[in-house]
Amino acid sequence: MKWLSGTADADYGDDRGYMVTNPSGVGCRRSGIDIAKQILKEAILQHFDIETLHLVSSHAFKIADLGCSVGPNTFSVVENIIESISIKLQYNGYDFDKFEFQVFFNDHVFNDFNTLFKSLPVDKTYYAAGVPGSFHGRLFPKSSIHFIHSSYALQWLSRVPKEILDKDSPAFNKGKIFFSTSPKKVELAYSAQFAEDMACFLNSRALELVSGGLMTLLFPSTTLNCKNRMTAAIDMFGDVLLDIASKGKISEELVDSFNMPQYFPSPEELKLLIESDGNFSIQKMEPIVRPLTTEINVKSIVLHFRAAWQGMLKDHFGGDIMDEAFEQFYNKMVESAIWTDSSYQRSGELFLVLKRKFV
Amino acid sequence: MKWLSGTADADYGDDRGYMVTNPSGVGCRRSGIDIAKQILKEAILQHFDIETLHLVSSHAFKIADLGCSVGPNTFSVVENIIESISIKLQYNGYDFDKFEFQVFFNDHVFNDFNTLFKSLPVDKTYYAAGVPGSFHGRLFPKSSIHFIHSSYALQWLSRVPKEILDKDSPAFNKGKIFFSTSPKKVELAYSAQFAEDMACFLNSRALELVSGGLMTLLFPSTTLNCKNRMTAAIDMFGDVLLDIASKGKISEELVDSFNMPQYFPSPEELKLLIESDGNFSIQKMEPIVRPLTTEINVKSIVLHFRAAWQGMLKDHFGGDIMDEAFEQFYNKMVESAIWTDSSYQRSGELFLVLKRKFV
Repeated sequence: MKWLSGTADADYGDDRGYMVTNPSGVGCRRSGIDIAKQILKEAILQHFDIETLHLVSSHAFKIADLGCSVGPNTFSVVENIIESISIKLQYNGYDFDKFEFQVFFNDHVFNDFNTLFKSLPVDKTYYAAGVPGSFHGRLFPKSSIHFIHSSYALQWLSRVPKEILDKDSPAFNKGKIFFSTSPKKVELAYSAQFAEDMACFLNSRALELVSGGLMTLLFPSTTLNCKNRMTAAIDMFGDVLLDIASKGKISEELVDSFNMPQYFPSPEELKLLIESDGNFSIQKMEPIVRPLTTEINVKSIVLHFRAAWQGMLKDHFGGDIMDEAFEQFYNKMVESAIWTDSSYQRSGELFLVLKRKFV
Repeated sequence: MKWLSGTADADYGDDRGYMVTNPSGVGCRRSGIDIAKQILKEAILQHFDIETLHLVSSHAFKIADLGCSVGPNTFSVVENIIESISIKLQYNGYDFDKFEFQVFFNDHVFNDFNTLFKSLPVDKTYYAAGVPGSFHGRLFPKSSIHFIHSSYALQWLSRVPKEILDKDSPAFNKGKIFFSTSPKKVELAYSAQFAEDMACFLNSRALELVSGGLMTLLFPSTTLNCKNRMTAAIDMFGDVLLDIASKGKISEELVDSFNMPQYFPSPEELKLLIESDGNFSIQKMEPIVRPLTTEINVKSIVLHFRAAWQGMLKDHFGGDIMDEAFEQFYNKMVESAIWTDSSYQRSGELFLVLKRKFV
């Protein structure tokens, strides 16, 4: 099982969304982004309105990618955005060459910005800046950004809900690391935390985005009351941790004090949160339909889970159990019915186009 | 001599100007910056004009620190700039709380931005962004910055002048690593490279700074035809490298192919370059007068030189000779007359305030 330590040094922060949202084949995040690329282009052509943004006087267009990680996906998305805006400008008779683009790459402060900066495309057509900090708070001055994008990042919660870590709470998540097979109260705690985070996110973005500015979000999403491969896999990993605890290698308390800080909202839930915020109009909210892959490569899936989770897991459990945990996880995944049982839904993805209302 | 390897892992890029400009006591760069702080504040109070910058409508003030390194000096300078602007705003009857600040921290792409971002003050009063890239080229969109500052960075050349590395050129710098005791042709090659770099710098900044925007520069500088401690020290280090070559540990060709990529212009030279560019009016150009330190700590001076140079030296000579080179350098420095001979000028520093002319 040598291969399982292949990503042993991968940084949790560097690619935290990778495959977590898409545990059904190698490169699915990339594939999701490729499909989103076309939808993103169509969204810009349809909804982007240069006149309302006062761009003709300044000629400087500011783009932000929130939760950018270290590339290269972020570079590809940014190029797509600029290319799409270019088409729209030329279509409307503007001289594209007069416009300049400034791109703000944002991720949390522990992201490897050094790697991001060294990987910037040599032939990039924009001025680049890195912005460290949580997108659950303010990142930019008021009305200073024209276009905001975020791929596979908003599912990460700002924290694990307090009550599911509290032994005395009815929402205590005993013996689990996720909410999908836990009592309803646990799911509600997760959902409430997501709502709180989303409110902070939308409120901050509403201040930073110019009136009429666009925000495109690529989101992992689940349909309520459906079995789902992704959530089932996370639950399996929770079982692995309990197995290791039962051998005395870690304590059960340590497992109980760990919960996966992710939430996959339903489209209905997202719609309510955006409407409740009130600052954005939903221009588009549609599922991303990816082609079915015929072959499932569990080895790659586990490798990608490891790359995405390991930093976070090491912080909580220490490094000693990592190899054993991911080997057991692999074995469980290979034996699992989730790949063959058609009642398991593939993880869903949503693409949202929001427009900042005029103030 | 264990202490000499105390900074063995210091990154050349992290503190590249440290003490190079000020080899006369511990913490002199800091001291220079502290004195510059007061001058900077006075310059802002005197020359900063909010009405001309169209700030009252946008309330967003953009500051850039070019050659910021990893902090903490850059944070202190930025706070000083914001504090000074705040005083000026309040003095003119504006509500400071309405204004927001965005600070762009720039350095070359190999700078450790991860450390910079993790060190950002918790209570900072601005939105921070990192901008990787050479300040000899463009870094920001047109007319997007209101205030530019740079401390102890512009003395670094974009490259060593080609002709001084060319054996067949009359400007070949045989047996030397700097120009101060070389034939006039070598000095002219250095000076020409500095002029070219400064032209690129001024041209880029003229495009990026709004009309009426200020640029403050803190600069190491020399008076023509004067003996100078700093340049003498660099020459001494060149002698050390030749000594090591004479023992066969490195080749003479390797020493000949290394030259220190720094230049310390005279005030007259700088004035000519700025006037020749034509985009900036010189509001102030004055030497920084630092209090004389009575005690010279050669050990600290050599340590700081090592921190500043080691990355660059390792790239060229490999790591093996570092300990020996800095031990010999220390011995030479201790025995040197430059600390006691009053004909040696202390390194000079210049503070410049430039205003972007209106276009």
